Amino acid sequence: MLSLWLFLLPCINFVPQALSEKGLELPQYDGKDRVLDINDKNYKKALKQHSMLCLFYHEPIADSKELQKQHQMTELVLELVAQVMEEKDIGFGMVDSHKDAKIAKKLGLEEEGSMYVFKADRVIEFDGLLSANTLAEFLLDLLEEPVEIIGNALELRAFDRMEEDIRLIGYFKSEESEHYEAFKEAAEQFQPYIKFFATFEKSVAKELSLKLNEVDFYEPFMEEPVSIPGKPHSEEELVEFITEHRRPTLRKLRAEDMFETWEDDIEGIHIVAFAEEEDPDGYEFLEILKEVARDNTHLPELSIVWIDPDDFPLLIPYWEKTFKVDLFRPQIGVVNVTDETGATHDLSAASHLDIWESDLCVFFFSVLLSFFLTHIC
Amino acid sequence: MLSLWLFLLPCINFVPQALSEKGLELPQYDGKDRVLDINDKNYKKALKQHSMLCLFYHEPIADSKELQKQHQMTELVLELVAQVMEEKDIGFGMVDSHKDAKIAKKLGLEEEGSMYVFKADRVIEFDGLLSANTLAEFLLDLLEEPVEIIGNALELRAFDRMEEDIRLIGYFKSEESEHYEAFKEAAEQFQPYIKFFATFEKSVAKELSLKLNEVDFYEPFMEEPVSIPGKPHSEEELVEFITEHRRPTLRKLRAEDMFETWEDDIEGIHIVAFAEEEDPDGYEFLEILKEVARDNTHLPELSIVWIDPDDFPLLIPYWEKTFKVDLFRPQIGVVNVTDETGATHDLSAASHLDIWESDLCVFFFSVLLSFFLTHIC
Repeated sequence: MLSLWLFLLPCINFVPQALSEKGLELPQYDGKDRVLDINDKNYKKALKQHSMLCLFYHEPIADSKELQKQHQMTELVLELVAQVMEEKDIGFGMVDSHKDAKIAKKLGLEEEGSMYVFKADRVIEFDGLLSANTLAEFLLDLLEEPVEIIGNALELRAFDRMEEDIRLIGYFKSEESEHYEAFKEAAEQFQPYIKFFATFEKSVAKELSLKLNEVDFYEPFMEEPVSIPGKPHSEEELVEFITEHRRPTLRKLRAEDMFETWEDDIEGIHIVAFAEEEDPDGYEFLEILKEVARDNTHLPELSIVWIDPDDFPLLIPYWEKTFKVDLFRPQIGVVNVTDETGATHDLSAASHLDIWESDLCVFFFSVLLSFFLTHIC
Repeated sequence: MLSLWLFLLPCINFVPQALSEKGLELPQYDGKDRVLDINDKNYKKALKQHSMLCLFYHEPIADSKELQKQHQMTELVLELVAQVMEEKDIGFGMVDSHKDAKIAKKLGLEEEGSMYVFKADRVIEFDGLLSANTLAEFLLDLLEEPVEIIGNALELRAFDRMEEDIRLIGYFKSEESEHYEAFKEAAEQFQPYIKFFATFEKSVAKELSLKLNEVDFYEPFMEEPVSIPGKPHSEEELVEFITEHRRPTLRKLRAEDMFETWEDDIEGIHIVAFAEEEDPDGYEFLEILKEVARDNTHLPELSIVWIDPDDFPLLIPYWEKTFKVDLFRPQIGVVNVTDETGATHDLSAASHLDIWESDLCVFFFSVLLSFFLTHIC
């Protein structure tokens, strides 16, 4: 085969680069041990040595062959990510909740099966899907600047498109502003789960109707943001407001915090909707779902979780079997963690209608909502 | 922990469903062998027994420990997907290019490292990333209807948003129309790589300016479609037109066909652009990239490959190291497979400017383009 020459440039220069045809070669684990078995002798050094340290907190390794195999797979995932991230100065370790109970207590590790990332004086819990891809993406997000700067109208369009995320945007005089500094400090507390943006441009601020030092808070899928009252804000005021308002009415299940989202129920109830955004009928359904969420966002305890099956292909056959649904079409239901008696709801009168016609769909939601409300309120 | 009751409904009925808190449990490989070692005794039966059969065509297993380990990892991926897809009646097998050379020839397997999917009388090559997620998604896409129906304006919006994909849409009288039948047959030839849509609604057709039996072809990222000449079309005419026009000026690298895209160079040249669509500066850059592609789509040999690093987190540190670029910012360059002498291009006069300012960025593209053209044309 031909050898490959690549000129890839850091924006401005052609950098000629000799390459074999490896441009797309995926990393394979090289077999070298990089993940530390953490104990009271090595944890302090590990914390000091790396810009970030990821500790996986796990149950004691069981006797069962199957559980041991699972543990080995987890280790392999961590080893692969450790290898890939070696360039980035990120360390990895395992902490056994029984054997290393003292260290776990000292470091504040609480939830078995979670990953804890130590970065400067912060500890960030990763309670997502433990796959190499998801973990690598999470760590790379943590390495980015905590605040993204919006410099013009086109960049603002990118901001507008991020309706799935909780995000804040503030308008400040310059990077030297003390209020921007406080905003940045607050951003670090929520990175990478909540996105922070700032602008120093009057024209961008005008389009957002932002006054100087004002900060707007955007709940996912809502059309209008909320201005955080009492500007200018200290770091503490920002943190307090966000902590109080961060639970959205409608959120998308994401691999990076899927377990946290799932467990964040109020009295055990979520409305769960499956819809493929890429499919015309899934898209249509989702637009209605957003409308319903917007109309009912005043209900503080309403929680709708949207799952796009495309994001979790390996779970589709499992969900279809367990829930007896066909995920080639949009589906909706209620998850109730507390009501162990359950209850059947006979909607058979509607069963021959196509409920994806908008009107009926709204009717259907109202039934779900009232079910939800009678169980919560 | 509380036990979990889930009422998840097939659109219209509340189906009470007893569940432990397993709603998000990811499948683990159960250790059972499902992937066949294909030989001349079992391949015919395997083809007959399953609605789809996936055959991984591989080099003979090497002596080297490392290559053996890689082969085992591939096997594990296949076993996991085979387990997950058991419900869907999909079979799996491995074909050794040396040992099973005769069968390979009979079945038309050619490229080692590719997966071939046998579905009815079609063979579909999968030349993408061999991860369980990507493969599962690919197979599920193959199980969907080859043509999606657009029934109203909201669904049409979903269609409009799919600018990354090659897609066709036709307007037909009804599902019984012979021309729709031909369209559907053509769709099966390109599933799941090219997306086919149809509408039977006059109002939808009007919005698309589609006449009866007309079919429009959309190249990725282009604003206007091309009407396929000579309606109504036979299956063969559609297939011929698509085959001739399917190579886009600008395409996004996707896990499901990444190797195919990478290898589909003309005289060895791609322009490669890295940009995170989720980042404001990546988004801005991408909008300019699309403009350039639209302005130059008349050059039949121009090939721009857009890579969103977010889609390949495990490759980021590798790319950064190999190409000496910082992927936290957008980057662009030229891949030249044939010009082994290479050439440095001194753009240092511009090196202190911010080329992401739009004007300079366009200037920069024109330099890249002329480089590209002098090497191709």
